[in-house]
Amino acid sequence: MLTNDQLSKWDQDHFFHPSTALGAHSRGEAQGMIIKTAEGCHITDRDGNRMLDAFAGLYCVNIGYGRQEVAEAIAEQARELAYYHSYVGNGTEASITLAKMVAERAPEGLNRVFFGQGGSDANETNIKLVWYYNNILGRPQKKKIISRWRGYHGSGLMSGSLTGLSLFHKKFDLPLDTVRHTTAPYYYQREDASQSEAEFSAQCAADLEALIEKEGADTIAAFIAEPVIGTGGIVPPPEGYWEAIQKVLKKHDILLIADEVITGFGRLGTMFGSPKYDMDPDIITIAKGLTSAYAPLSGSIVHDRVFEVLARGTDENGPLGHGWTYSAHPIGAAAGVANLKLLDSLGLVQNAGEVGPYLTEQMRKAFEGHDHVGDIRGVGMMTALELVSDRDTRAGFDPEKKLVPQIAAAMAKRGVIARAMPQADIVGYSPPLCLTREEADTIVGVSVEAVAEVLG
Amino acid sequence: MLTNDQLSKWDQDHFFHPSTALGAHSRGEAQGMIIKTAEGCHITDRDGNRMLDAFAGLYCVNIGYGRQEVAEAIAEQARELAYYHSYVGNGTEASITLAKMVAERAPEGLNRVFFGQGGSDANETNIKLVWYYNNILGRPQKKKIISRWRGYHGSGLMSGSLTGLSLFHKKFDLPLDTVRHTTAPYYYQREDASQSEAEFSAQCAADLEALIEKEGADTIAAFIAEPVIGTGGIVPPPEGYWEAIQKVLKKHDILLIADEVITGFGRLGTMFGSPKYDMDPDIITIAKGLTSAYAPLSGSIVHDRVFEVLARGTDENGPLGHGWTYSAHPIGAAAGVANLKLLDSLGLVQNAGEVGPYLTEQMRKAFEGHDHVGDIRGVGMMTALELVSDRDTRAGFDPEKKLVPQIAAAMAKRGVIARAMPQADIVGYSPPLCLTREEADTIVGVSVEAVAEVLG
Repeated sequence: MLTNDQLSKWDQDHFFHPSTALGAHSRGEAQGMIIKTAEGCHITDRDGNRMLDAFAGLYCVNIGYGRQEVAEAIAEQARELAYYHSYVGNGTEASITLAKMVAERAPEGLNRVFFGQGGSDANETNIKLVWYYNNILGRPQKKKIISRWRGYHGSGLMSGSLTGLSLFHKKFDLPLDTVRHTTAPYYYQREDASQSEAEFSAQCAADLEALIEKEGADTIAAFIAEPVIGTGGIVPPPEGYWEAIQKVLKKHDILLIADEVITGFGRLGTMFGSPKYDMDPDIITIAKGLTSAYAPLSGSIVHDRVFEVLARGTDENGPLGHGWTYSAHPIGAAAGVANLKLLDSLGLVQNAGEVGPYLTEQMRKAFEGHDHVGDIRGVGMMTALELVSDRDTRAGFDPEKKLVPQIAAAMAKRGVIARAMPQADIVGYSPPLCLTREEADTIVGVSVEAVAEVLG
Repeated sequence: MLTNDQLSKWDQDHFFHPSTALGAHSRGEAQGMIIKTAEGCHITDRDGNRMLDAFAGLYCVNIGYGRQEVAEAIAEQARELAYYHSYVGNGTEASITLAKMVAERAPEGLNRVFFGQGGSDANETNIKLVWYYNNILGRPQKKKIISRWRGYHGSGLMSGSLTGLSLFHKKFDLPLDTVRHTTAPYYYQREDASQSEAEFSAQCAADLEALIEKEGADTIAAFIAEPVIGTGGIVPPPEGYWEAIQKVLKKHDILLIADEVITGFGRLGTMFGSPKYDMDPDIITIAKGLTSAYAPLSGSIVHDRVFEVLARGTDENGPLGHGWTYSAHPIGAAAGVANLKLLDSLGLVQNAGEVGPYLTEQMRKAFEGHDHVGDIRGVGMMTALELVSDRDTRAGFDPEKKLVPQIAAAMAKRGVIARAMPQADIVGYSPPLCLTREEADTIVGVSVEAVAEVLG
C-alpha cells in the first residue's frame, strides 16, 4: 500500500491542481487533503480525519456522498458498455432515458438536451448555439453576450469571460471582447443604502437597458445569469428583479440563458431555480446536480422555440459542427439516471426546502447583533454569512488579512468545511441536500466558534 | 424493459446529439444506433447487430471495449469515493498516482499534469496557461496562436478556432481573432506535384515563417499541432517536417503545443507521438487514450521550463484562477490508472506498431492500381484511404455525391465501422490497439467490397 508520504511527494512533483498556488504547492508548503472515502455529508481523508462537508464538494454532491445505488449503476454501465459516442444520432439506453428525464423535470417548453462534461463547456455550447441561431435568423451582428458582475459561468476563455470576477480574468487577458457585464443584483452591497429591494431591482433593470442601448440592441444576442448568484457571494435576487430584467430582455429580443449549474436539481428546494423566480429562459445550463458529481456530465436544455431555428439551420447547412467526444458519456448518463431517481425517492428537493432555510435561520439567531456580521442570507440549501468591519458602512476587511480564509481554516480544524468565497468577506455554505437539522446545528455551532476565534 | 420504439421516440423528442442533422434526427429520418454492449473491437446494438469498430469510437478506445479490469476499477472507486474536488491542492490516491504515471510515460521534462474532462477543454487550458505565461514574462503582446489548416483541436470557441476545418467554423463566427492558420503538411495534396517530401516540408516551414514575420514574432505566443493530423484526414508529417518547423519556432521564441489527444498512449506504436518525430513540446494535450474513453478525462502535461514561470506567477499573484469542478475526477483517475496498466500488460503499444502497419500494407495491396484510389497512408494504428476522381490530377469527387459517406454506409451494412473524414474523400481507420491481423483482414476485405459497390 502506498504511504501518505509517498503520495504527497508525487503530488508535489506531478499534480498540477486547479485554483491552487502552484509555487507553494510544489514546494510542499500548501498540501491539500487526500480524500479516501465519504458518506452522506461527511468525507474522510487517508489519515482517518472525518469532516462535515458543508459545501458538498463544490456545491455539487446534491444527493450526498456514498450512495451505493449510483455506484452500482455506474459499475453496471462500466461492465456492460463504458463508452460509445453519441455523434450522428447514436446513443445508449441511459443517455436517451436521461434526456427524457431531464426534459420532464425542466420547465415547460424546454425539451431538448445537449450533453457535455462540465458547466464551463455547457456554457461554451450555449454561446455557440446562440451565435448559430442568430446567423440562421439573418442577424449576424446580434452576437454580444451580457453577463453580470459577480456572476460565475466557468473558467474557459468564453465561460471565464462571462464570469464577472476579476480573479478569473487577471493575467488571462479576459474578458473576450464580445462580452459585457452589467450590475450585480447584490442588494446588501448596493451603493445607495436608502433604496428598497424593489427600487434597487428597478435600477438593475435600468442599468441593463442603458447598456443595451449604448451597445445597440441589434448587437446583443443573449443575457446569461444564475437565478441566484453562487460563487459571486451566494446572493438571492432582490424583490422584483427577474420581472424587471425579463421585461427589458423581451423588449430588445435578447435571449435569456439561465445558468442553473448550481440551482438545478433541487438546491433551492425546487427542481429548477427558474420557475421559482418566474423566469422563462431560452436555454438552461445544467451540470453539478445532474449527476451529483458522481461522474462528469453537463447539459444545455434548449427551448423548442430555439431548437426549431437550429433544426432549420441544419436542414439548410448540414449537421451541426459541434460536439465533444464525451458528450452523453454512458457512465455519466447512467449516474444521472440513478441520481435523479434518488433525488425523488429520498425526497431531497423537499428536504433542501426545509433544512436549508432552517440552517439560514439558525445562523441568523446565532449571530444576531454581532458587530461584524453584516448580512446573513440564503435560499434553499445555500447560506451566506457576510462579515463587515463596520455594520453601518458595510465596509469589508483588508483583503491582506485573509479574514474569511482564516475562519474557514478555524472551522476545518473543528471538522466542518465551509468556503471562503472569492473577492468578498463571505463564508459560504451549500451542503448536500440530505443535510439533517442536527448537522445544520453543528455547522452553526462551529461557525460561531470559528468567528469568535478569529475575530475575538 | 424499454422497447426500442419507446427509446427511439424519446431520442427524437429530447436528445440533442452532437454533430448531427438536428432537423432530420428530430423528424425520425436520421436514427442512429442504440448501443448495448461491446467487447474487444466489436460493438453490439440493442437489436443484436454486432459490428467491428474500425474507428475505436472516435479514435479513443485504445485498449478495446469491455475490459473488466477497468470496469472493476471504476466500480471500486464509485463505491469508495465517487467525487471530491481537486482545488487548493486536494486529491485522491488515484489522481495523484495517475499524475505520476503520466509524467513517467511523457517525454523528458514534461512533469506536471493538469487534468480536465475532454480534449477541447484541455486546449482551452493550454491557451490560458500560455497567455498567463507571457504575462508573467512581461510580454503582454505575445498572445496570438498559430494552428494549421486541417488541424483538429476541439469544438469550443477557442479550441474550435484552433481547428482548421471550415465545418467547425461555418455559422459559428469562428475562428476568434487571436488565431492564425498556416499550411497543412498534406504532402499528397501539395499544389506543386514536382516537390519531394523534403522540399514540401521546407515550404511549410517557410510559409510558417512568412506568417510569423507578417504578424510580428512578438505577437505570436504558440504553435499548436497534432504530430499526425487526425480528423483533417489522417496525415503523417512529410519527411523533415518537424525539424524544419521547430527551427522556426525556436528562432522566434514561440511555444510548441503538441496536441496528442489522438496520438498519445500508443496509437502510433509509441507511447507518445512527439518523440517519434523528435518533437520537443512545451505542453502536450492528452485525452482519449488516457482512459481509453472509459470515463471522461483529459490533461495538459506541462514542461518544467513553463511550469517554473507559472509557479512564479502564482507566487506573485496568488492561486491560479483556473479550474474545472471535475478536474481530476476520481472515476476518471481510477479508469486512467487501470487503463495505463492494461496498455502495458497487454503489450498494446507494441501491437499498434505491428498490426497497424499490417493493416495499411494490406490495404495498399488490395487497392493497388485502383483507378480511384489516390493515396493509402498510415502510421501505427491509423490508416487513410484517399479516393480521387482522377489519379493524375488528384482531384476529388463532387461533394454533393457524398461518395465516402456512401462507402462508409456500405461498410456498415457489412458489419464494419469506418469513418467518412470531413471535407475530403477519405475513409479513415483508427481501430482499438488490440486489433488482430484477422480483424485487419476483415476491414480490408469489407473496404474492397464497399468501394466496389459504390464506385462500380
